[in-house]
Amino acid sequence: MPTPAFRPRGTVAPGLLGPGGEFDLIRRFLAPAQAGRPDVRLGPGDDGAVVAGEGIVLSSDLSVEEVHFRRDWLPPEGIGYRAAAAALSDLAAMAARPIGVLASLAVPRGDAGDFAVAVMEGVRRAAESVGAVLLGGDLTRSPGPVVLDVTVVGEASHPVLRSGARMGDELWVTGELGAPAACVERLMAGRRPPRGAWPRFAEPRPRVQEARWLAERGLPSAMLDLSDGLAGDAAHLAAASGVAILLVHELVPVHPAVQLHTRSRARAVEMALGGGEDYELCFTAAAGCVEPFCREFEKRFDVSLRSVGRVGHGDGVWWVDAEGHRSPLRSRGFRHFEEGE
Amino acid sequence: MPTPAFRPRGTVAPGLLGPGGEFDLIRRFLAPAQAGRPDVRLGPGDDGAVVAGEGIVLSSDLSVEEVHFRRDWLPPEGIGYRAAAAALSDLAAMAARPIGVLASLAVPRGDAGDFAVAVMEGVRRAAESVGAVLLGGDLTRSPGPVVLDVTVVGEASHPVLRSGARMGDELWVTGELGAPAACVERLMAGRRPPRGAWPRFAEPRPRVQEARWLAERGLPSAMLDLSDGLAGDAAHLAAASGVAILLVHELVPVHPAVQLHTRSRARAVEMALGGGEDYELCFTAAAGCVEPFCREFEKRFDVSLRSVGRVGHGDGVWWVDAEGHRSPLRSRGFRHFEEGE
Repeated sequence: MPTPAFRPRGTVAPGLLGPGGEFDLIRRFLAPAQAGRPDVRLGPGDDGAVVAGEGIVLSSDLSVEEVHFRRDWLPPEGIGYRAAAAALSDLAAMAARPIGVLASLAVPRGDAGDFAVAVMEGVRRAAESVGAVLLGGDLTRSPGPVVLDVTVVGEASHPVLRSGARMGDELWVTGELGAPAACVERLMAGRRPPRGAWPRFAEPRPRVQEARWLAERGLPSAMLDLSDGLAGDAAHLAAASGVAILLVHELVPVHPAVQLHTRSRARAVEMALGGGEDYELCFTAAAGCVEPFCREFEKRFDVSLRSVGRVGHGDGVWWVDAEGHRSPLRSRGFRHFEEGE
Repeated sequence: MPTPAFRPRGTVAPGLLGPGGEFDLIRRFLAPAQAGRPDVRLGPGDDGAVVAGEGIVLSSDLSVEEVHFRRDWLPPEGIGYRAAAAALSDLAAMAARPIGVLASLAVPRGDAGDFAVAVMEGVRRAAESVGAVLLGGDLTRSPGPVVLDVTVVGEASHPVLRSGARMGDELWVTGELGAPAACVERLMAGRRPPRGAWPRFAEPRPRVQEARWLAERGLPSAMLDLSDGLAGDAAHLAAASGVAILLVHELVPVHPAVQLHTRSRARAVEMALGGGEDYELCFTAAAGCVEPFCREFEKRFDVSLRSVGRVGHGDGVWWVDAEGHRSPLRSRGFRHFEEGE
């Protein structure tokens, strides 16, 4: 049984700490993190980091071994990357400019060396991929699972909220959905993930640039990132905006690997709707406004941009057919996955 | 084995989420958290919270069951309070004004109800005790230990850093040290904590007001909070400032319950130096400048303010005697506790 009273606490950094094996490790992973940029007034190394900006956007995302990842699915660097990318996706969802991340990591005693450093390297790589720096965090022992909490910090003078959807808006999504869910389904069955789907699971790209590009053109009226699956996330957006979301079955963009994996359009759409962890953007925009920008967007970012439905009166999420008739999501094969929590 | 792909992610809030048992729980603990204050532009409920201020101070602090707390030591509300108070102490250390906290909580499936809500209530109580609000967080399942990561958010246009100590400065500490360490020592031995020491362990008060009061008077040249024990934290301050810290054995303020517990001044000082989790302030200030404010400080905050040494040439932390001779900390009975990490 360890002694609760004797652990380092607080945000720490290289060259600024007293002696101790743990501090040496912290030094190691914060070593190259110093930043020379005006929005980072103080990097890691003191009791806290200090950032500056018009509106500072904050979000935390907790990843737990055996719940959100398995060690035999991803290398330690991939575990760190994926957890941080998931967290950074929340900055994209608000069209915020990433500034930095704080990463709190708990590992079993035997993993406090190279494993922990590799996880933090993955966090750093995800952060740097969207222009953010490592601002600090915490490192401690875990009696069991590896736990990684990533807090993301960004700047947005005009964040795009979930609550701005208006009647008649179109609903848009970036990318093709369902590939991470297909990977998990296969992995859980002890099989290899579908060909072509793996990068979408292992290396999700937070759509930060894409979101800011759209926001700079004033397009999204409401936006979030697809982390729970299109059905669940559309329900969040509907609830926040006080509207109904009407989805067109035929328009849901399914990743080709999912189509191959399921061999059924209905099952593939189900996976796209219920799977989650796609980390694509989902947003509403006034009718007709996005279409003129589609080609440029897709060419610039090499990711698709598709209208999948529209905003209607009422609440909840519905399928809608060509005649405007609504039907519950379940009627078209959607079932609610057993949740892991 | 749960399904990693199907969990809610991101910062969430009451009334703004779609249906689902987990979201109901999140609603429950975020329910009273909405804030009407200019520094919180957006509270919980979207993909992120948005705060505003001159310089935004950030720090994360991870608490893990069996490493930092035990369920049989504290009720769930106390676990949340203590973890958040520890994190908020880092804002005090920079003389920052607290704005809010993000709390990421992982609990075993059976604890996702009242237990999780009580932990979050404790977090909220700690936050509100220093004028901060709950900005969001994450809630997920843990396959084993309860894990709580608290990210604190504050504002400081002129944060007090660890690196500002200058030659000839005096070293000051607030409060009396060692009581939490004495509690842990007793609890680990399966005994009751020393009379009078328990509140210092169970209900640490982040010295936010005290730190700001000192900083408003321009007193601290460098500051941190005592989380690792005076010896370890003084070493951090020495390293950050590029100086030596010289402690006077006779001046170290030991909590009276520790004195009673140890029945030895040497052992009591050892506990004050090596124990940790005191969450008192430790700061340097130009010689003679603090003394005139001592009485007012102690009267106002009902906490002692004591000079315990000074800043000298060199590096590291030393005992110094009346003749100015230095000796290593170990020579006066200090031994390095086995660290829990």
